[in-house]
Amino acid sequence: MKVKHLEITKNMSISEFMNQLDESGVLGAGRIAHATNLLADSMKDEDTKIFLSLAGPMIPGGLRKVVRDLINQGHVDLIISSGANLTHDLVEAFGGRHYSDIHENDETLQDSGIGRIADIYTKADDFEVFEEEIHKIFAKINEKYDVISIQKFIYEIGLLIDDENSFIRTAAKKNVPIFAPGLIDCMIGLQLWIYSQDHDFTLSAAGDMHYLSDFVYNSKKVTACMLGGGLPKHYTLASNILTGGIDAGIQITLDRSEGGSLSGAPLEEAKSWAKAKKGSNLVTVVGDATVLFPLIVAGALDKIE
Amino acid sequence: MKVKHLEITKNMSISEFMNQLDESGVLGAGRIAHATNLLADSMKDEDTKIFLSLAGPMIPGGLRKVVRDLINQGHVDLIISSGANLTHDLVEAFGGRHYSDIHENDETLQDSGIGRIADIYTKADDFEVFEEEIHKIFAKINEKYDVISIQKFIYEIGLLIDDENSFIRTAAKKNVPIFAPGLIDCMIGLQLWIYSQDHDFTLSAAGDMHYLSDFVYNSKKVTACMLGGGLPKHYTLASNILTGGIDAGIQITLDRSEGGSLSGAPLEEAKSWAKAKKGSNLVTVVGDATVLFPLIVAGALDKIE
Amino acid sequence: MKVKHLEITKNMSISEFMNQLDESGVLGAGRIAHATNLLADSMKDEDTKIFLSLAGPMIPGGLRKVVRDLINQGHVDLIISSGANLTHDLVEAFGGRHYSDIHENDETLQDSGIGRIADIYTKADDFEVFEEEIHKIFAKINEKYDVISIQKFIYEIGLLIDDENSFIRTAAKKNVPIFAPGLIDCMIGLQLWIYSQDHDFTLSAAGDMHYLSDFVYNSKKVTACMLGGGLPKHYTLASNILTGGIDAGIQITLDRSEGGSLSGAPLEEAKSWAKAKKGSNLVTVVGDATVLFPLIVAGALDKIE
Amino acid sequence: MKVKHLEITKNMSISEFMNQLDESGVLGAGRIAHATNLLADSMKDEDTKIFLSLAGPMIPGGLRKVVRDLINQGHVDLIISSGANLTHDLVEAFGGRHYSDIHENDETLQDSGIGRIADIYTKADDFEVFEEEIHKIFAKINEKYDVISIQKFIYEIGLLIDDENSFIRTAAKKNVPIFAPGLIDCMIGLQLWIYSQDHDFTLSAAGDMHYLSDFVYNSKKVTACMLGGGLPKHYTLASNILTGGIDAGIQITLDRSEGGSLSGAPLEEAKSWAKAKKGSNLVTVVGDATVLFPLIVAGALDKIE
Repeated sequence: MKVKHLEITKNMSISEFMNQLDESGVLGAGRIAHATNLLADSMKDEDTKIFLSLAGPMIPGGLRKVVRDLINQGHVDLIISSGANLTHDLVEAFGGRHYSDIHENDETLQDSGIGRIADIYTKADDFEVFEEEIHKIFAKINEKYDVISIQKFIYEIGLLIDDENSFIRTAAKKNVPIFAPGLIDCMIGLQLWIYSQDHDFTLSAAGDMHYLSDFVYNSKKVTACMLGGGLPKHYTLASNILTGGIDAGIQITLDRSEGGSLSGAPLEEAKSWAKAKKGSNLVTVVGDATVLFPLIVAGALDKIE
Repeated sequence: MKVKHLEITKNMSISEFMNQLDESGVLGAGRIAHATNLLADSMKDEDTKIFLSLAGPMIPGGLRKVVRDLINQGHVDLIISSGANLTHDLVEAFGGRHYSDIHENDETLQDSGIGRIADIYTKADDFEVFEEEIHKIFAKINEKYDVISIQKFIYEIGLLIDDENSFIRTAAKKNVPIFAPGLIDCMIGLQLWIYSQDHDFTLSAAGDMHYLSDFVYNSKKVTACMLGGGLPKHYTLASNILTGGIDAGIQITLDRSEGGSLSGAPLEEAKSWAKAKKGSNLVTVVGDATVLFPLIVAGALDKIE
Repeated sequence: MKVKHLEITKNMSISEFMNQLDESGVLGAGRIAHATNLLADSMKDEDTKIFLSLAGPMIPGGLRKVVRDLINQGHVDLIISSGANLTHDLVEAFGGRHYSDIHENDETLQDSGIGRIADIYTKADDFEVFEEEIHKIFAKINEKYDVISIQKFIYEIGLLIDDENSFIRTAAKKNVPIFAPGLIDCMIGLQLWIYSQDHDFTLSAAGDMHYLSDFVYNSKKVTACMLGGGLPKHYTLASNILTGGIDAGIQITLDRSEGGSLSGAPLEEAKSWAKAKKGSNLVTVVGDATVLFPLIVAGALDKIE
Repeated sequence: MKVKHLEITKNMSISEFMNQLDESGVLGAGRIAHATNLLADSMKDEDTKIFLSLAGPMIPGGLRKVVRDLINQGHVDLIISSGANLTHDLVEAFGGRHYSDIHENDETLQDSGIGRIADIYTKADDFEVFEEEIHKIFAKINEKYDVISIQKFIYEIGLLIDDENSFIRTAAKKNVPIFAPGLIDCMIGLQLWIYSQDHDFTLSAAGDMHYLSDFVYNSKKVTACMLGGGLPKHYTLASNILTGGIDAGIQITLDRSEGGSLSGAPLEEAKSWAKAKKGSNLVTVVGDATVLFPLIVAGALDKIE
């Protein structure tokens, strides 16, 4: 195939831009076009379940409504999230926000009660509200359960919050399960521990595996869409080992492969472990997921019905 | 400022997408919005000259028409290019092409006369035509010059080729100078050496400095737009030392800073050398320039009347 | 300070090499010298507890004995590990190995039952032995516990295995606690779920927080040594929030910061969250931990009496 | 092969450490061991010429004596350098130095006349001496030449400076040619242009190709050792196209491949262009060359009698 040079004009649509990338077909243009086509095809295929993994600051970094909308539109069937992304969704659900354009050094930020994630900022006041509200929620869930699995726990939280922008609430309403194998390692986990000091309440670490394995077995095909790496990426891939691996996969990451960490590993490697099927359709997009995933989603939405 | 979450919908325009990134304002979204606004402002400001540097496979990677159009529209005033990007422009000007989707290992490619740049491919046949044609051009230029500076040499080449898609030709027509301090290190350079074996023809390495320094002195303000790093980035910044540095700068790169190489250096560092003015408006976009630069250009074009 | 140029000679010792890096003091040399000095000082200081986090393929990648020796020598006081590093320690404890120099594509590897981690390989046969043995261990632990915290669970495993090269066993003998908040996401977790299908056995996700917080409160000073990022890095830093943050920190990683993921975040950022104290001594070494950590350890051992 | 775990002890020698890396054989350990063995073998083989390319801040970053010693010991046969590394060698030859531990922001540095390269600093006073001295040298060379090639120009500079630590001087004494195709893009180039304003003195850009091609033709085998990427890497590889490519290659870099820039390209890609022979022995070490190259050199010196 010949590389067709991009033609960029005024007043382009995302759709026109994506077509240009597709016709170029090389380097980042090729990777993004590939991911967009694969996502669109997966959205259109009724037999395909889309698993979305969230590592890195996806929710504080501006993707809260993108994830919520994908759930609402039926384009995501299962989510595997870091604890942090759940915490930050709840911070906003309880009235808090994320902030930009605060230019202070980290020691001054500590004094001001401002936590930093790259150029995103959080405020201690918002976390205080979070703590107060999450304990009320724990108490309500504890009325029903002494031992609960992580997925069910998140589901129950989703039912108890009242913010239509929350992806946790939206997932609960839409029966899209959210798994978070490392939930304990975030502010929800810390507060849960404090709560459980004087309440009989146990979060079962392995309790979700039955539901997850059933979900995987009942999916004719799986496309995994992995934003960032870490535990969520690994859990997403590993859960599909039960059926011989995912059928298709998209990862968007800035991590690299040479140190051997899974976060930067090429998706091809998953084939060796039968976490991706032989012949599966796999693409790695190198870059910042908080801007490339929305671009890919916009492009994919334009390609369905 | 509060981070506003992105809202991605079907049938979005690039302009709407860019507004979303701008309102988010953090991580990659913030960086791309910043770069887009800065490029648009620079395009609109009659007092600002835009310097564009091209390192990495920008021309083989699909940006040939993007660069050509920016020149044609008066949005680029001066170009500093690697030799390779000039060579690849001429390969296409002489009828050759760049290719994708060739899946062979590098030893097989060698046997087939196919050169690889990541997932972009070139063919030996196209380079044979290139060699033949470039020697004819050398001979014509040699009729007029025994010693010639690199910029003037590229300008003369531009006048002698006949491909409206060529950015070298377009720059020549539009009197946009192209500098290439490392020109000798590409196929043009190799052929030039072969030509000069039996012709009296010298390319003066330092011969462009006078013109370049005059250009810098005569620019009220300079915005440098640097795609990739390398010699073109350094030369772009260093040429502005004469007037206390650039007024604004955008760089798009995947290189990182910790090893100290200029390619990955933050633009802030240029301030210490007076290659960027104190208070200059500088932004680094981390990612693949072959897809992010077109996106930024599309966004900027939408912002000018 | 003037940069002193390195002088490299035949028959150098690690100690001499490290002195050269220290006297240079810039770029990677400066970072490695800083990390080495900080690790040695932390080893020598009786008031300092050293927390070691293990993400990425540290155990399969050759550091199994390095970690074991640090525990045995009293140089590590607490470990936070990914589940995978624990699994790979057990695979070897049960007689399996990790392999190199297998040059097959990933689809062929799948057919051969060979899993790949970059250029490290595992064999299905070894995992079969692992499965058999780990179930025997589960059963023995289940005789004593119906509900168990993750740390206690790993400790009990350590008591039941018989391989002096195992860091899990060595940690158990030396009473060095190992935490693994994401334990469920590895082969141990998968087998545990299979085991718990027909046994009453619950792993408590939040059950370790009490012990961990006591450990942190009882540490006069903490130096965190973080290999790779991920959940282990986050948990290490977050556990120290209780006392205002770590006193010193070393991280070795190839991840970068611009996407906002914690794995690539500069340690300075931890100050804003009070996960690192104001004035804490923090250094990031950019590179492959599987080779730079052993170098730093070798240098640090030379600096203690 | 089984991965042998590293055993790190007190009082290790570099040689013992390297043996450990070699026996591990995976990830960074494997890459560094491979590079060390290849460099040692190349040093020992009388038929092999070693080409060394220098991009990034190798000389200001502490490798000045390492490069000088390799030349003196006959372990480097040809050098291809960025202009900057030559400039910084001369700055020190004229009495200047490079500095560390200056913690000011870049605007303050500009006011203080301090230029920054990551965490390396230079002083304006040292550059003033440089300017004065380099003009004296230009004048002396101009007495002998009106037109001069870049390599011969650097050689003549080497003969005229008086600092045994200078690699330029050492290379001149030892008849090791230094090429610098982008010489014009550094302070030597800037001063040369100023000098040539009122003197008849032309630097011939293509003038070195004859000598370089003869050198390549007369080398039975070539091992290219490439520190950083950029023009020096490309020129090193491209010059060997004349004989079908290098026989062996080592590159040490933090750049990555996905954007397609040559700096981050895998060496395998060079095979497609016949810049590396089929079957050539190629290894990429990912990391900071200013610390990994000295380590590799130390290891290689131990392996030659």
